[in-house]
Amino acid sequence: MLGLLTPTPDGWIDAALSNLDAVLLDHLHCELKAASNATALVARYPMFPTLVRSLSDLAREELLHVQQVFDELERRGVRAHPPGEDPYALALRRATQGDTPRAEHGALLDRLAIGALIEARSCERFKLLEKHAPTEALREWYGELFASEARHFRLFASLAEDAVGQELARKRIAQLAEREAEIVERLPLEPRVH
Amino acid sequence: MLGLLTPTPDGWIDAALSNLDAVLLDHLHCELKAASNATALVARYPMFPTLVRSLSDLAREELLHVQQVFDELERRGVRAHPPGEDPYALALRRATQGDTPRAEHGALLDRLAIGALIEARSCERFKLLEKHAPTEALREWYGELFASEARHFRLFASLAEDAVGQELARKRIAQLAEREAEIVERLPLEPRVH
Repeated sequence: MLGLLTPTPDGWIDAALSNLDAVLLDHLHCELKAASNATALVARYPMFPTLVRSLSDLAREELLHVQQVFDELERRGVRAHPPGEDPYALALRRATQGDTPRAEHGALLDRLAIGALIEARSCERFKLLEKHAPTEALREWYGELFASEARHFRLFASLAEDAVGQELARKRIAQLAEREAEIVERLPLEPRVH
Repeated sequence: MLGLLTPTPDGWIDAALSNLDAVLLDHLHCELKAASNATALVARYPMFPTLVRSLSDLAREELLHVQQVFDELERRGVRAHPPGEDPYALALRRATQGDTPRAEHGALLDRLAIGALIEARSCERFKLLEKHAPTEALREWYGELFASEARHFRLFASLAEDAVGQELARKRIAQLAEREAEIVERLPLEPRVH
């Protein structure tokens, strides 16, 4: 799905459903990191008008999701807390180090490619939650989030193509997708989005 | 105005009007920093529901302003670039170091107090631009930004009172306002928002 090379392991959805509160808490911080990352990209690359407009829209949408996740946590009586470590995102960032393409905008390409893969993996897992979450309201909401993350995946991939050309962008996303698959297979199955 | 202890020096508005392109470029990054700072506060303090909701709204509003400033830069044919240093914000953050109140949430108080003062100063300068900008459309727009920053000042001050109580919050904001006034009087008059 969306260029991912391995499906989320069996067992993740059981871990997630056994502690949906923890998944929601992790989700809150995923949305905040997505908003923060998009805002940082706009600040670093304001010379690309399409990037400025689309990523500031994306950040605004992620901040709406923050509010939705927070509402759901409140409904469930769960008190939020600051984020812990994010081993998935950390491993993914490390996986690019050392061989960022030497093209002009190679560093931007890597940030967009990682953005695309994170959105793709979230998307895939929201699809599982859309199918298996315990209430109709939750299933519907995860369906909306699935659609949103799918759009974001396509946006990051398209911005990467704008920045460095289609061939190089696709090649790099495919190369990092291989490493993403290894990371997903290596990390323990925990009740988190990633 | 809004707790500020010194008006912007005479001469700032002349510097600003003589290079409005530079003011707009600085403004773009001020809005991005405001959005980023609000998002970071939500991530760090998600145990405060009012803060989560109001600062994620504020970040969304600042991102709309980013788009408005960017549109204006495009209309003027100005190409944006990554931010340079921000001596005002840097000096203001340094001015809190060493004597953050030892109250519970003293660090949060300082971040909110600085947020309040930055909004107040932006607000005061947008008022000057509302009066003196060269076109009716710009004057109207700066008037809207003035109103928005005034609301944001009150929001940060009110969140500070929620976090540590009215007395301590007001005392700390007044104390940092003294240092803010010194910084404003010390910094050179340049075509920037701060």
